[in-house]
Amino acid sequence: MCERKTDYAFEMACSNIRYGAGVTKEIGMDLQNMGARNVCLMTDRTLSQLPPVGVVLDSLTKHGVEYKIYEDVRVEPTDKSFKAAIDFAKQGHFDVYVAVGGGSVIDTCKAANLYASHPEAEFLDFVNAPIGKGKPITASLKPLIAVPTTAGTGSETTGVAIFDFENLKAKTGIANRALKPTLGMVDPLHTLHMPSRVAANSGFDVLCHALESFTALPYNLRSPCPSNPINRPAYQGSNPISDVWARHALKIVAKYLKRAVRDAGDVEARSSMHLASVFAGIGFGNAGVHLCHGMSYPIAGNVKTHRARGYNVEHPIVPHGLSVVLTSPAVFAFTANMCPERHLEAAQILGTDVSNIKKDDAGRVLADTLRSILYDLEVEDGLFAIGYTKEDIPSLVKGTIPQERVTKLSPRAHTEEDLTALFAASMKLY
Amino acid sequence: MCERKTDYAFEMACSNIRYGAGVTKEIGMDLQNMGARNVCLMTDRTLSQLPPVGVVLDSLTKHGVEYKIYEDVRVEPTDKSFKAAIDFAKQGHFDVYVAVGGGSVIDTCKAANLYASHPEAEFLDFVNAPIGKGKPITASLKPLIAVPTTAGTGSETTGVAIFDFENLKAKTGIANRALKPTLGMVDPLHTLHMPSRVAANSGFDVLCHALESFTALPYNLRSPCPSNPINRPAYQGSNPISDVWARHALKIVAKYLKRAVRDAGDVEARSSMHLASVFAGIGFGNAGVHLCHGMSYPIAGNVKTHRARGYNVEHPIVPHGLSVVLTSPAVFAFTANMCPERHLEAAQILGTDVSNIKKDDAGRVLADTLRSILYDLEVEDGLFAIGYTKEDIPSLVKGTIPQERVTKLSPRAHTEEDLTALFAASMKLY
Ligand SMILES: NC(=O)c1ccc[n+]([C@@H]2O[C@H](COP(=O)([O-])OP(=O)(O)OC[C@H]3O[C@@H](n4cnc5c(N)ncnc54)[C@H](O)[C@@H]3O)[C@@H](O)[C@H]2O)c1
Ligand SMILES: NC(=O)c1ccc[n+]([C@@H]2O[C@H](COP(=O)([O-])OP(=O)(O)OC[C@H]3O[C@@H](n4cnc5c(N)ncnc54)[C@H](O)[C@@H]3O)[C@@H](O)[C@H]2O)c1
Ligand SMILES: [Fe+2]
Ligand SMILES: [Fe+2]
Repeated sequence: MCERKTDYAFEMACSNIRYGAGVTKEIGMDLQNMGARNVCLMTDRTLSQLPPVGVVLDSLTKHGVEYKIYEDVRVEPTDKSFKAAIDFAKQGHFDVYVAVGGGSVIDTCKAANLYASHPEAEFLDFVNAPIGKGKPITASLKPLIAVPTTAGTGSETTGVAIFDFENLKAKTGIANRALKPTLGMVDPLHTLHMPSRVAANSGFDVLCHALESFTALPYNLRSPCPSNPINRPAYQGSNPISDVWARHALKIVAKYLKRAVRDAGDVEARSSMHLASVFAGIGFGNAGVHLCHGMSYPIAGNVKTHRARGYNVEHPIVPHGLSVVLTSPAVFAFTANMCPERHLEAAQILGTDVSNIKKDDAGRVLADTLRSILYDLEVEDGLFAIGYTKEDIPSLVKGTIPQERVTKLSPRAHTEEDLTALFAASMKLY
Repeated sequence: MCERKTDYAFEMACSNIRYGAGVTKEIGMDLQNMGARNVCLMTDRTLSQLPPVGVVLDSLTKHGVEYKIYEDVRVEPTDKSFKAAIDFAKQGHFDVYVAVGGGSVIDTCKAANLYASHPEAEFLDFVNAPIGKGKPITASLKPLIAVPTTAGTGSETTGVAIFDFENLKAKTGIANRALKPTLGMVDPLHTLHMPSRVAANSGFDVLCHALESFTALPYNLRSPCPSNPINRPAYQGSNPISDVWARHALKIVAKYLKRAVRDAGDVEARSSMHLASVFAGIGFGNAGVHLCHGMSYPIAGNVKTHRARGYNVEHPIVPHGLSVVLTSPAVFAFTANMCPERHLEAAQILGTDVSNIKKDDAGRVLADTLRSILYDLEVEDGLFAIGYTKEDIPSLVKGTIPQERVTKLSPRAHTEEDLTALFAASMKLY
């Protein structure tokens, strides 16, 4: 526990968001207002054929904004794919960046902007310690407008960029407020194009951002205390402000996730989930996530042959939201005894009657609630169904160890044995 | 109604907040981190004798930060008092500003920073049109750390600075995102020193920020549509994000306002109200306020001899929160038929059983709820009790007309006759 009273504090660094159906039609005007002369537009090869990119290009043309397009973003980016985008950015000498896509595109664009603004830096310089060097960012980055097309990562609100570090077989990232987009332009019309499985998986990401930030170690219990406020980490633990965002995002997920997955034309449901992804993003961007995310990084990084259903992608991947949600029943069964009221409240918001449930059963009840949502949405039956066996558990545990930046926000301390048990319990869900 | 689809948008420009008991002890370190060499510390003559200022001074001394102190802020500032602070700022060539106080201090400090950064500007240049010229702010301001000591204005989160324009006998202000403090350092320990009436009046401000932003014209109904996103006003109407803040602030007010007023030692209640003032500030800073605030400006500006109970102040004033809340029963009775569900929800959050209430009665019920809260907290019985008579109504109406920036956010359109009736209905409350 923290001893310095003055460290019982948290900071909310919030994000500029513009939300509205059709709002991206204005983007050319915004870029003009900013005096942009040479814009870098990043996207991926699926989106480059679809209206979200088309609308942006039309607006740029209409307002005479010069741009170059980079459409080679890898879905679930890697260090290699980040570096390719960085090279493009360095050569282009851009003055504004626009990212149109899901978390993969937005994160890649953040990294490209960062390293193009710091041309002397080595790639590992800004990557989170202990994998990278976690150096401070000193240059000022170019403005970045993020136009999210999934209802998922909340990357338009956060200072985080995640990639799969291939040598390590685990994801890691760069986390720094300087990466936060200048503006998140949230146009719910874009989400109408999402395939059903993308809506499901990115929706699970929202669900876990909300659940993990809501149950994260409270801000006034984390340690060690930074000796100077400048060292306060971005992920500060749950706090009264992130709680507001997390609860609200959960309520929307409870009401709309299933509808959004089942009917791409359900504008109300898809729009609402888009807003929920923003809310959950602001929440976890301040409070942090914990075990589901920490354990998801090796689940994604060790992928063997799993092909993501419904994704238009050539390489094997475990989509981020899926890699996160598969361990969620086991994780919340494990963490519940540290703050059973919050676990019960979450189960209740997600639709379970908890009026006669004892605190000791909070974990089981939230886990059951999650399993039933996953079952209804036809999610793969556990890690086994995406190609893992018991033999893989040691590698999965090994890949979780360096994720301390997030796992230390778990409300319950855990050993390697605990992680082993959590992966084992996530092999089959139903 | 707005015709351009692309204008059905709202923007959330959020604020950096650090919250924690004792957090201001760190401020010297923050200033050191920022490289501050010549700090302007603004406060008022009551606070300069009290711990909130003492703690800051100790921290500055401890960390060797040079500063000059300005303690002549006027409680309920005027154009004249703003100008005196501006002169001080211009002469000091400061590199960072710190405001320790209520809205009066924070607003004065914002104005001082603005005009010292724009030495060529005339005072009216940045004042809201139609009273001033509402010119854009082009210089970049110095960093400003706001340390709020009331649980009220939320000025630490907003880009607004309000003053009483004495010639006009009405308040007006400067509203621009550039005025938003760099950091709001919210230390609930400071609120323990507030006299009971300051706690009550600043708490009413929170109540009205929440109620007005919750019932403001929705963002997708306001007009005219700005033809360029750069012209989107700061006050955009109620929207799904400001609603989250407003509802949450209301819940805290319902639970804690009375306790906070009655017992200065109730740390939980006073801390909670401090956080509620931040929440309501972020909410109204994006959505806007409407009639209670618009009508409060002439109520404050026409003050004759009213002495604020419990305030350590030499001149006649109607404290802001009081000037706002006295018309609230009449205002919400007037606006209710435009969005009765929201008025009923507000009454319910404030503790009234609305289960058998018809929509047509929403206004009456919310008005009764408010009257009963005011009665319990021993608030003056209407405008009459603070020195106004029927003869003053024409001047009060006249002073409301130029407040269109806020009054146009009223969900219900209104004529001068309506304003006359609202002032008349606010003469006596009980
Ligand atoms: N930065 C953060 O804060 C943060 C948080 C969580 C996750 N992430 C990262 O984000 C990535 C996942 O992002 P994601 O879940 O948004 O998905 P994604 O960007 O990987 O996209 C998934 C697939 O959906 C397609 N797609 C996206 N939007 C579409 C649309 N509107 N219509 C049709 N197809 C569309 C893409 O082309 C892609 O094939 C992962 O790398 C994850 O680690 C980052
Ligand atoms: N900028 C904005 O967004 C915004 C919003 C609402 C109101 N306002 C403005 O703010 C002003 C009102 O501010 P306020 O309500 O915060 O009060 P205030 O700053 O006028 O202070 C009221 C009195 O309380 C005293 N005081 C303040 N904190 C104290 C403490 N902790 N202990 C002891 N005494 C304390 C002050 O010295 C003063 O005498 C008005 O001018 C109003 O128009 C601004
Ligand atoms: Fe995630
Ligand atoms: Fe106010």
